[in-house]
Amino acid sequence: MSKNIVVIGGSAAGPKAAARARRMDEFSEITIFQKSQDLSMASCGYPYFVGGFFDDRNKLLCTPTGVVRDPEFYFNAKAIIAKVNTEVTKIDREKKQVEFVDVISGETGTMKYNKLIIATGSLPNIPPVPGKDLEGVTTLQSMKDADYLRKIRDDGKIKKAVVIGGGLIGVETLEALNLAGIDLTMIELLPQLLTFLDWEMAALVENYLRTKANIITNDGVAEFIGKEGKLTAVRLQSGKEIPCELAVVAVGVRPNIELAKNAGIQIGKLGGIKVDKYMQTSDLNIYAAGDCCEITNLITGKSVLAPYGDLANLEGRVAGENVVNGSTAVFPGTIQTGICKIFDYGIGATGLSETKAKEAERNYIAVINASPDKPGFMNGKLLVTKLVADKKTEKILGAQCLGPGDVSKQLAIWATAIKGGLTVGDMANGDLPYAPPFSLAVDHSIATAHILQNKMSKKFTGISAAELKRKIDEKEDIFILDVRGKDEFDQTRLGIGETLIPLDALRNKLNELPEDKKKEIITYCKISLRGYEAAVMLKARGYKNIKVLEGGIMAWPYKKEK
Amino acid sequence: MSKNIVVIGGSAAGPKAAARARRMDEFSEITIFQKSQDLSMASCGYPYFVGGFFDDRNKLLCTPTGVVRDPEFYFNAKAIIAKVNTEVTKIDREKKQVEFVDVISGETGTMKYNKLIIATGSLPNIPPVPGKDLEGVTTLQSMKDADYLRKIRDDGKIKKAVVIGGGLIGVETLEALNLAGIDLTMIELLPQLLTFLDWEMAALVENYLRTKANIITNDGVAEFIGKEGKLTAVRLQSGKEIPCELAVVAVGVRPNIELAKNAGIQIGKLGGIKVDKYMQTSDLNIYAAGDCCEITNLITGKSVLAPYGDLANLEGRVAGENVVNGSTAVFPGTIQTGICKIFDYGIGATGLSETKAKEAERNYIAVINASPDKPGFMNGKLLVTKLVADKKTEKILGAQCLGPGDVSKQLAIWATAIKGGLTVGDMANGDLPYAPPFSLAVDHSIATAHILQNKMSKKFTGISAAELKRKIDEKEDIFILDVRGKDEFDQTRLGIGETLIPLDALRNKLNELPEDKKKEIITYCKISLRGYEAAVMLKARGYKNIKVLEGGIMAWPYKKEK
Repeated sequence: MSKNIVVIGGSAAGPKAAARARRMDEFSEITIFQKSQDLSMASCGYPYFVGGFFDDRNKLLCTPTGVVRDPEFYFNAKAIIAKVNTEVTKIDREKKQVEFVDVISGETGTMKYNKLIIATGSLPNIPPVPGKDLEGVTTLQSMKDADYLRKIRDDGKIKKAVVIGGGLIGVETLEALNLAGIDLTMIELLPQLLTFLDWEMAALVENYLRTKANIITNDGVAEFIGKEGKLTAVRLQSGKEIPCELAVVAVGVRPNIELAKNAGIQIGKLGGIKVDKYMQTSDLNIYAAGDCCEITNLITGKSVLAPYGDLANLEGRVAGENVVNGSTAVFPGTIQTGICKIFDYGIGATGLSETKAKEAERNYIAVINASPDKPGFMNGKLLVTKLVADKKTEKILGAQCLGPGDVSKQLAIWATAIKGGLTVGDMANGDLPYAPPFSLAVDHSIATAHILQNKMSKKFTGISAAELKRKIDEKEDIFILDVRGKDEFDQTRLGIGETLIPLDALRNKLNELPEDKKKEIITYCKISLRGYEAAVMLKARGYKNIKVLEGGIMAWPYKKEK
Repeated sequence: MSKNIVVIGGSAAGPKAAARARRMDEFSEITIFQKSQDLSMASCGYPYFVGGFFDDRNKLLCTPTGVVRDPEFYFNAKAIIAKVNTEVTKIDREKKQVEFVDVISGETGTMKYNKLIIATGSLPNIPPVPGKDLEGVTTLQSMKDADYLRKIRDDGKIKKAVVIGGGLIGVETLEALNLAGIDLTMIELLPQLLTFLDWEMAALVENYLRTKANIITNDGVAEFIGKEGKLTAVRLQSGKEIPCELAVVAVGVRPNIELAKNAGIQIGKLGGIKVDKYMQTSDLNIYAAGDCCEITNLITGKSVLAPYGDLANLEGRVAGENVVNGSTAVFPGTIQTGICKIFDYGIGATGLSETKAKEAERNYIAVINASPDKPGFMNGKLLVTKLVADKKTEKILGAQCLGPGDVSKQLAIWATAIKGGLTVGDMANGDLPYAPPFSLAVDHSIATAHILQNKMSKKFTGISAAELKRKIDEKEDIFILDVRGKDEFDQTRLGIGETLIPLDALRNKLNELPEDKKKEIITYCKISLRGYEAAVMLKARGYKNIKVLEGGIMAWPYKKEK
C-alpha cells in the first residue's frame, strides 16, 4: 500500500528528504509545502551572488546540469508535488493532516499524511530595538534578501553599510558588500568575532578583516535611526552613531518550530525539535530534519543546534529513507565542522575548540602551529592551526584552521580524524597525499601533530600568546629571545622587549643569556620551529624554565612593533 | 655519555633523522655523509624547476625562510657536521665504523659510530639496452639531472623528446618538458599508465594526456640510437623508431642497498633493507629510513617498497629519535597514499585499488562517482573517484581520485578514513567543512559513500564501463538508456546504440522501453545520478534486470561518438 508523505519546507532538508523517499518508493504520494516561491535554494551561496561571483540568480536554484528546480522539475523528474507559495498553518496529529493556505490567493486546504517530515529550517534573530523595520534594515537569510542586496550592488548607490554580528554569515556578508564597493563597519556584541574559534584565533581573523573594514567588538546595536522611513544611521549601546544606508543583521538564527510546538511535538532545551538518531520526533509518524532540529554532538554527547546546509542534507536523506522503510537509516550526529571564506582567507573549525573543551570539562592539551601549506617554490601560503587533544587518550578533540593556505583540506583531515577516533600519534604518522603542488613533504596537519606530540611528551613547554602578553603587561621578570635572522628582525618584530640572537649564533653567544639558569626564558621565531630548537639547546645547557611561544610571530594576535 | 651518530645519506630521510636526533640530544656528535654536493634537496620539486614554475634552483635547497641548507647551515643551526662530496664505501659492523672517500680529493678516512642510520635512498632503473650512455639519455632523479634538464629548457634548442615510463615521475616529467615547448612522446611497457590506478581510471588520464602528447602503451625501448655520441632516436620493441634529441628514463627506482648488503644487514624479499616498526635493522646499532627500506602496508600487512618523500621524512624522524632514546618511537607503516599533478589534473590514490584488492584476495565492493567538487556557481570542477570497500566489514580499503577538481582534499579525507578504520556508513554521514567556495553541500567524498552505500544495500546494481563495453563488443542483447536532456545528448553522447529518453519524460514514455521485463537495461546520464533514479523507477515498474553505468558519461574511458 502506497503512502502519503508530506514534507513541510522546501529549502535543503525538505527536498532532499522528498527525493530520497521517492528513490525508496516509486509509488508513494510525496508533497512538499514551501511557503516562498523558490525551492531547493543553495542558501549558503547567497553571499557569493550578492558579492558578484556570478550574476544569474537561477544558478542558486539549478541542478548541476542547469535545470531550475521548480515545481515542474520536481513533478516531471521525481514525481514529487511541490506546492510553492503555500504555508502550512497547522499540523493536526489526530487527524494526521496538515492545514495550509495559499499565500497568494488566500485559499486554504488540508492534506492527509501517513508520514510527515518537518523541515521548517530556522528564522533569523532580529535585535528587538527601535527602527528595525526601516527600509535598509535587512538580513541575508532568504532568496528575497539575496535579491534585495544584489540589487543594491547593481544599483551602486549605497556607500556606507553596517553588518551587525560577526558570525559566519556576518563575515561572509561583509566580504560580499565590500566587493560591491561599499564602506563597511562590523558590529559584534561579544569581545570576539566567530565564536567557533578560540579568542587568539579569532583575533588573527579580526586583524586581517581590519585591513578591509571597520570592526567594532564589545558593542551592540541600540537603535536603527531613520528619516522618512529610511535608515540613516545605527546607534550603538555605547552611544556611538554610525551613519549608514544599509544594515544587515546577522546575529544568528533560531529553529523555526512554531508548527511543531503547536502540535505538541517535543521540543528540546535549546529550542529545537527533539529527534532520535533516526530523525524521528516524539510522534512516531513525524520526522524532522535540518535547522529546526536539535542533534547530538558526537564528542560531548550533548544536544546542539547545528544549522549547517551540509547536515540538513544528510539529515533529510536519513528522514526521507526512514519514512518509507521504517526507522533503519541513522544520522548519528555532528562534530560541528564549519568553514567560511573571507576574502583570501579560509577559516574554520571542527570538533571542540579549547573554550568548548574547557566548558565540557575535558582534560585537554592544545597547541598552535603556523606554517605554510606548500613549499615556497610552489607559492606555499600560511596556515595557522590550533589543535586540541585529550590529554589522556591522546585522541583529537578539535582543530581550528585559518589563513590564505588550503584550510579546507586541513579541516577535512581533522574532521575525518575525529570521526575515526585517531590519536595525535596516529596523525604524526599520517599518510597523506604529498606532491609539491599540494603540500609540504610533512603536511601541515602532520607537522601540527608532531608539535603537539612533542608538547605532550614534554620535549618542549609551550606558552600561548595570551599568556606571554599577560606576563609582559604584568611586567614579570622574563627573558624574551627571538632566534630569527637579523634581516628578518629588521623587517618585522614584536617589540615586546625581546633580545635577538639568531639560532645559528646561539651556541656561541650563550654569554648573552641570563646567568641565572632558573630565569624564565621565552623563545620564538617566525613559526617557532627554530624557537623550539633554541629551547632544546638551552635546556641541554642547564636552563630550567624555557618556554616556546606557540605559533611564533605568525600567530601573534597583538600589535607588532613593525 | 654522548654518542657518535652517523647518518649515511643527505637527501630526505637522512637530514630529517639527523635533525631529530639533535633535538633529542644536544651533545651527541652527529655526522651526515652525502655523496653529492647538495643536501636536503626537495627532490619531488625537480619537475617544477625543470618546468619553469620557478627559476632559482636554490629554492629546492632552502629552509622556509630562504637559507640554503648547506654544511655551514647544518653546523651553525643544528651543530651537525655534513660531509658532502663524501661517499661511504663500507660499513664495518665489527669495528662499528664507516669507511669513506672524498669524491673530489680521493682522500679516504674512517669514522666510528655508536649508532648508524642508513638513508641511502633509491637508484633509478635503467633499461639495459644499447645506447643508454648516449648524450641526451637521462633520468630525473638527482639535482644534477634537474640542472641538466632545466638548461635544456633555458637553451630552447631541443624540439623532440621521449619519456620512457608512464609512472609518477614519468608523467610529471612529461608536463615539465611540455611546458618547455618540447614535442613529447611517452612510452609505457604496460597496457596502462600510472599502475597505482585501476585500468579505467588510468584510461581517463591517458585520454587527457593525449591532448598534450603522443602516448604509446604496450611497448618498450629496445635501443637508443645515436650519432656522434648524441641521441637521435629511440627504437621501440615493436620496431617503431621515434626521432628525438632527449630521452628521460623514468621506469621506477630500486632501493640503494649495496652498502647494507655488503655489511651483512638483512635485506627483504623485495630488495629493500628489512626494518622493524622502530626502523631498526637486523643490526641493533643500525637503523634505516627512506627509499632504501621495506616497510609494512597497513592494510595487507605485507612488506612493500614505498619510495615517497613524505614517508622518508616520517621514517627519518622515527629513526632519529630512536638512535638517541632507544627503540621507542614507532613508524607503523603505510597505506601507500600518492598524488601527482599533471597539467590541470590532480591524480592520486590511497589504500588498495581494485586490482590490489583482488591480488590481496579481499572480498571487496567498488564504485565510481563522477561529480563536481563545488557548486556550478563557484566554478566547480569535475572529480572522478573510485572507492573500494570491504564487502563484509564495510571498511574503506582504498580510493582513487582524479580530475581538475580538488583531488588533494579528497585523497586526504580517504587516507585519514582508512587510517581511522571508517566504514562506508561512517563516511556517508561525514561531517566535513562545507561552504560553497570549498565544496558541495554534500561533499564529493560523502556522495561517493552514498553511492557505494546504495550499491551495497542493493538499492541499485552498477555496471562498470569495461563490463558494458564487453557486452557491446560481444553484441549481447541489451537495451541502453541515456536519460539526459535532448540538449545534452546533442552536445555529447556515447554512440553505443543507446536510446534517449530524458528522465523527466520517462514516466510517460514507458511504452518506448522493451516489453520484456527481464531484458537487461543499462541506464546512465552525465554522472549517473539521473541514471540511478531511472533505474529505481523502472525497477518499481517490474523491470528485473536494470544496471546503472557507474560514473556515467564523465567516467567513460572509451571513444565517444561526440
